[in-house]
Amino acid sequence: MSQKIKIGIIGGAGYTGGELVRLLLNHPNAQLQYVVSKSQQGKDLYEIHQDLTGETDLAFCATAEKGADLTFLCMSHGDAKKFLDENKFLYDAKIIDLSRDFRISRQSTGDSWQETAFIYGLPELNREKIKKANYIANPGCFATAIQLGLLPLAAKGLLNADINVNATTGSTGAGRSLNATTHFSWRNDNLSVYKVFEHEHLAEINQSIKQLQNSFSDEISFIPQRGAFSRGILAAITVNIGLSQSEVENLFKIYYAEHPFVHLVKTVDVKQITNTNKCFMQLIKHKNQLAIVTVIDNLLKGASGQAVQNMNLMFGLEETTGLKLKANVY
Amino acid sequence: MSQKIKIGIIGGAGYTGGELVRLLLNHPNAQLQYVVSKSQQGKDLYEIHQDLTGETDLAFCATAEKGADLTFLCMSHGDAKKFLDENKFLYDAKIIDLSRDFRISRQSTGDSWQETAFIYGLPELNREKIKKANYIANPGCFATAIQLGLLPLAAKGLLNADINVNATTGSTGAGRSLNATTHFSWRNDNLSVYKVFEHEHLAEINQSIKQLQNSFSDEISFIPQRGAFSRGILAAITVNIGLSQSEVENLFKIYYAEHPFVHLVKTVDVKQITNTNKCFMQLIKHKNQLAIVTVIDNLLKGASGQAVQNMNLMFGLEETTGLKLKANVY
Amino acid sequence: MSQKIKIGIIGGAGYTGGELVRLLLNHPNAQLQYVVSKSQQGKDLYEIHQDLTGETDLAFCATAEKGADLTFLCMSHGDAKKFLDENKFLYDAKIIDLSRDFRISRQSTGDSWQETAFIYGLPELNREKIKKANYIANPGCFATAIQLGLLPLAAKGLLNADINVNATTGSTGAGRSLNATTHFSWRNDNLSVYKVFEHEHLAEINQSIKQLQNSFSDEISFIPQRGAFSRGILAAITVNIGLSQSEVENLFKIYYAEHPFVHLVKTVDVKQITNTNKCFMQLIKHKNQLAIVTVIDNLLKGASGQAVQNMNLMFGLEETTGLKLKANVY
Amino acid sequence: MSQKIKIGIIGGAGYTGGELVRLLLNHPNAQLQYVVSKSQQGKDLYEIHQDLTGETDLAFCATAEKGADLTFLCMSHGDAKKFLDENKFLYDAKIIDLSRDFRISRQSTGDSWQETAFIYGLPELNREKIKKANYIANPGCFATAIQLGLLPLAAKGLLNADINVNATTGSTGAGRSLNATTHFSWRNDNLSVYKVFEHEHLAEINQSIKQLQNSFSDEISFIPQRGAFSRGILAAITVNIGLSQSEVENLFKIYYAEHPFVHLVKTVDVKQITNTNKCFMQLIKHKNQLAIVTVIDNLLKGASGQAVQNMNLMFGLEETTGLKLKANVY
Repeated sequence: MSQKIKIGIIGGAGYTGGELVRLLLNHPNAQLQYVVSKSQQGKDLYEIHQDLTGETDLAFCATAEKGADLTFLCMSHGDAKKFLDENKFLYDAKIIDLSRDFRISRQSTGDSWQETAFIYGLPELNREKIKKANYIANPGCFATAIQLGLLPLAAKGLLNADINVNATTGSTGAGRSLNATTHFSWRNDNLSVYKVFEHEHLAEINQSIKQLQNSFSDEISFIPQRGAFSRGILAAITVNIGLSQSEVENLFKIYYAEHPFVHLVKTVDVKQITNTNKCFMQLIKHKNQLAIVTVIDNLLKGASGQAVQNMNLMFGLEETTGLKLKANVY
Repeated sequence: MSQKIKIGIIGGAGYTGGELVRLLLNHPNAQLQYVVSKSQQGKDLYEIHQDLTGETDLAFCATAEKGADLTFLCMSHGDAKKFLDENKFLYDAKIIDLSRDFRISRQSTGDSWQETAFIYGLPELNREKIKKANYIANPGCFATAIQLGLLPLAAKGLLNADINVNATTGSTGAGRSLNATTHFSWRNDNLSVYKVFEHEHLAEINQSIKQLQNSFSDEISFIPQRGAFSRGILAAITVNIGLSQSEVENLFKIYYAEHPFVHLVKTVDVKQITNTNKCFMQLIKHKNQLAIVTVIDNLLKGASGQAVQNMNLMFGLEETTGLKLKANVY
Repeated sequence: MSQKIKIGIIGGAGYTGGELVRLLLNHPNAQLQYVVSKSQQGKDLYEIHQDLTGETDLAFCATAEKGADLTFLCMSHGDAKKFLDENKFLYDAKIIDLSRDFRISRQSTGDSWQETAFIYGLPELNREKIKKANYIANPGCFATAIQLGLLPLAAKGLLNADINVNATTGSTGAGRSLNATTHFSWRNDNLSVYKVFEHEHLAEINQSIKQLQNSFSDEISFIPQRGAFSRGILAAITVNIGLSQSEVENLFKIYYAEHPFVHLVKTVDVKQITNTNKCFMQLIKHKNQLAIVTVIDNLLKGASGQAVQNMNLMFGLEETTGLKLKANVY
Repeated sequence: MSQKIKIGIIGGAGYTGGELVRLLLNHPNAQLQYVVSKSQQGKDLYEIHQDLTGETDLAFCATAEKGADLTFLCMSHGDAKKFLDENKFLYDAKIIDLSRDFRISRQSTGDSWQETAFIYGLPELNREKIKKANYIANPGCFATAIQLGLLPLAAKGLLNADINVNATTGSTGAGRSLNATTHFSWRNDNLSVYKVFEHEHLAEINQSIKQLQNSFSDEISFIPQRGAFSRGILAAITVNIGLSQSEVENLFKIYYAEHPFVHLVKTVDVKQITNTNKCFMQLIKHKNQLAIVTVIDNLLKGASGQAVQNMNLMFGLEETTGLKLKANVY
């Protein structure tokens, strides 16, 4: 394409907003038109994202501008919907929302239920729909890591027993705001559980599984953990399944054959994919148990990288454009 | 007691040997007679364990001495049995072995099976036997964290479905020797899985469960993880169970009422117990699933601290003697 | 002594207050009478310091009580002086203040200068005065690490050129309150400088040097750093000096011969002393430069441990009572 | 340029070799011809550098091939010179050596001294020479961080007193091989000093300063430190200087005006530049002392990134080609 995509970002001072800026400044087909931050308006981007010193002279502005081809919403859950209600003109262009507000497609509107106009933006599930979509609900980070481990099985109707998930997130998953569990003195050298069995991402995971395997009615027992690392998610999933190791591997290979960011590997660790948009996964079969261990960077494949992947699809670009990132592996 | 327990340590240059020395130097009823280290013989203890500068003038020696009341074996798996075979006089006094060599009580001797003379030294399971024992097989670190979460249920015969365990260990669990997965550049900011479904501690866990609930025949699906922290284990266990939250809490409280190191808490994290002999646990019931999350310090309650706890029991001392340790909590 | 020292702590919910509680619960001659925390009053101590579960049933109270033999003040700088002004009865018993409020002995009172009644509580400088003191100003953490490296030279009048100090603190030095530089996502895997040449501890360092070497008039160029670790300070000090390596070592050995917590070692690292009250130091002479590298635990020898050391001296106890702590070395 | 630069890498299994591969796979003008690793020959690159899964099918080979336009040597110190002696044909094409072997330009050859044919590859010092060079000696990591802080002063002849340097390196500076100070259990949460006053990089630092200010004859007192982080170096330099804060800032701005990777910033921390080729620096003047604090990524601007920067210059490319990297900042 000859012309660059003009882009607006709403909520650019946080982690996901910052990552989007970093990705888009180096994206050959993107042009940052404006970046909104209420709390930091007037400041240069590089005052908040100091690593950008020397890369951009853009400053944070206070309100959304007209004329963008695409708006990314990087706001807290609840705020995105509200912001769009107050800035309805944004619906005239394309939208990618990184919050939770539009992920569940069938939402209650008081008495009745209504389908949202947003497509759930997990390319490995909905690539063709995303290509044609105007509005995308970008998946959650845990939800991405867990779904990528389950989609190939759901596509074959093989999820017929309870699923156990234990997934650990880096601290950036909790965002830039300060709280007791992101205090260095607490989190360093530590590990903890939270929201046991009740993490809010379960809703979107269940929705995606049922999209592929409508019969699914079992429980996903999910124990989220907070790890002593900054970036990344490792999800360890256990399911009961009759297939052999090689049958399972084959099934996953076929499912992900045309998906450039997902790879089966022999052993998996978080730093293999840190600072990239990749998802690596390892499969281990033992008796009737299958362990699926997936790793992603929560801020990239789990947020801003996936958002750019969706942008690429929506604008007819190669899916990996601007996403061939050097891993931070050491 | 008026006289101090004379103690020998075999393998004093490693982590568990070092922790034992630290504990015993401050133990009011213990007196270190000798510390063997083949690799470091002749060197002062504080040359290897530099923190001990100013605390002891003892040097590592090459061979076990006679006259000790108790020998601790802090050797690699396989080496302990061999060492005792070569130093049979050690059987004349008490022995606590921290290796895996004697944990499984019924061992194959070629054609037949034989009960070992060693008692499995988990005080929360075998306190009365330990008091009378001469030889103790000290439990594994993962095994301790997982068993403490399951014993109260096994004691009531409530383990009647598959058990899912995801447990993460600090790097000290891998010992002092150098390998790729304890290299700082690799492990820092990382998380990984290993020995999925096949960790060697499953044998002793199953043995203990069956001691309390002989009917147990289900699978324990155990995914071990390597965390980016030095000390501690967090074990997240999921079981199917019919009891309510309060029934479960009550059952655990009763089981552990007389056990000074185990406590139920409302939220659990590893640093609550770092550098102590405690085990904290959190219970969460949701539908038919019960999550039991336990934390221990792998080098103390998971190794050397538990060994001293066993020593206290064997010599008629208060169980907590020398084990009232200041947590390193921050 | 037959009777226990009755102790009050003001500000018991923070890090230094918590460490004091931990130390005093295990101190054979101390009895915690009350612990004040405005923000946490009414809560059990173990709700805030969860590691204390099972160790004490004390709850935080709102105001100081009468009858204590010793009050520890663990408050923010400025608040300690104010609190004592509002609770003058505390002056009837002994006081150890961990804030900066009374460290500089000659303080301005508007038009004139006045000597405070507080003794600067660095036992390696003022042991005899401390023994007789009623009120102690406990030194700062950086100040302790740096002074211990300089006192033997000042005592001989050898500080006659500019001094360069680069010292790095763990995150607990910044206290429990949340701020950008203690956010895990920022501090993990990071290193930074702050307050370059202008750290507030320089005043007490200069005061102590001049107490021993009144002629000292050179600059101490101090670059403080924030490290990616929780506990500890490493101070690397460079001075111009004519003595040889062995002359310097001899001088330090003599100075610290009777001080149980300070030790010369061949190589120094922070974890050698983590969770102890020790100070280790390494001396390296090269041409006319002497490097003195000291390490302490900022919360213990740099705060609460030193406070207990002062308490021991004030009450005629062995200096190390309750301070023989197991290092967290791994 | 129309044709890609054909590249050989000798020693591709280590950290710097791996980083080079990562950079060159995404470099628009580079084509990896072969990668030698004696220890890993025959294995796929992605078996050793697992993050490269899906990016290249290249395998490690045993020996250097003919036909490359440029050879990078990523070998241990001493081995590079030896390897070139055994493979003299490599001198027919361009060479960038990342070891220490050719950094000192005047080397002893037994009785006499000889200038090497290698140009010291610090572009901020020698850009024009590098453009015309065939053989480049790539600077050391500490040496880069320290020199960048001193070059603008040396260029004006302003270094006329002793210089104090305290610089801390991440663990990757010690390479992939295993040793006690890169063991996670030791290095995590730790800080230590080493090679105090005697680091081998002092030679090249002195050589560069004298290139700009031949009169320099003072001491550089350098205390190297090992930090609890994986990537990056922070160098805190103190010099005596008469200029004011604004005069110094102006002098640095002018010196670095045309150097795209060096930026003055208001506050400096390592993660601002992690996973990039940038050097950020902060200047603080106080009385007659100037602190210059610089940060670089030791594997990029301190090694492989700088090597690619040199390649770009040698082949007439834009200096930043292939080096516009997304910072890993969180």
